Amino acid sequence: MGLSFIMGTRLDHVAIAVRNIDAIVRIYRLLGVEPSERETIAEQGVELLMLPVGNTRLELLQPLDDDTPIGRFIAKRGEGLHHIALEVNDIESVLDRCRTEGVKSLMDKPRIGAGGSLIIFLDPRTTGGVLIELVQAIDT
Amino acid sequence: MGLSFIMGTRLDHVAIAVRNIDAIVRIYRLLGVEPSERETIAEQGVELLMLPVGNTRLELLQPLDDDTPIGRFIAKRGEGLHHIALEVNDIESVLDRCRTEGVKSLMDKPRIGAGGSLIIFLDPRTTGGVLIELVQAIDT
Repeated sequence: MGLSFIMGTRLDHVAIAVRNIDAIVRIYRLLGVEPSERETIAEQGVELLMLPVGNTRLELLQPLDDDTPIGRFIAKRGEGLHHIALEVNDIESVLDRCRTEGVKSLMDKPRIGAGGSLIIFLDPRTTGGVLIELVQAIDT
Repeated sequence: MGLSFIMGTRLDHVAIAVRNIDAIVRIYRLLGVEPSERETIAEQGVELLMLPVGNTRLELLQPLDDDTPIGRFIAKRGEGLHHIALEVNDIESVLDRCRTEGVKSLMDKPRIGAGGSLIIFLDPRTTGGVLIELVQAIDT
């Protein structure tokens, strides 16, 4: 655990809620950012487009309909920055430290995310208003 | 311009508006993120703390008082994600492309930012709700 902690944390992605991916990807192209994978994740109610920037990514999230987490976010706050995802080496030890210090998660335990990674979202009411996703890649 | 465009865009930082840097840095430490430089920028009305993550940074912004851009942001929307900064190689050519496509900036022209870089903010009403800072490092 000591070493994994020293190895440090990486910004996996910055997620942006958008009404229409095609309209927004045009803007990032102007800024020199080109898209990579695009996929629909039905169980989360989103279509997703990844935009690599350096060794991290912007993630455009378009709701599949209004009654989804991203659809409700846009209805309430408009399009814009939605969450950040930090890759950690040992998600359970991070969660242990968080619990001790009053930083809560939105789910009981990590669930399986993209590519078999483990993911969990922290409660933004306990992180200074930022929705933070923790990601532990497989094989770490 | 061709080459600078191919060299690509980097995420320089993700800025987060906070009421109290000391309270928030404790949370990021739990996640394996440690702070680096801290400085006060009086003309922008903020105290700033950088948190390196991978080859990018989280930037905590604490308003020096309520009547500052970050103070007003927090009063209106609460603490949370504030803007992203993309490092580009040729800010003028990016701005030319943006103007042609209706993406506007909040200032007439780039101004001098940290370390002598050139910076400009794009109007979030023309970027899908995201406040985007463009940064061109010196010597590129």
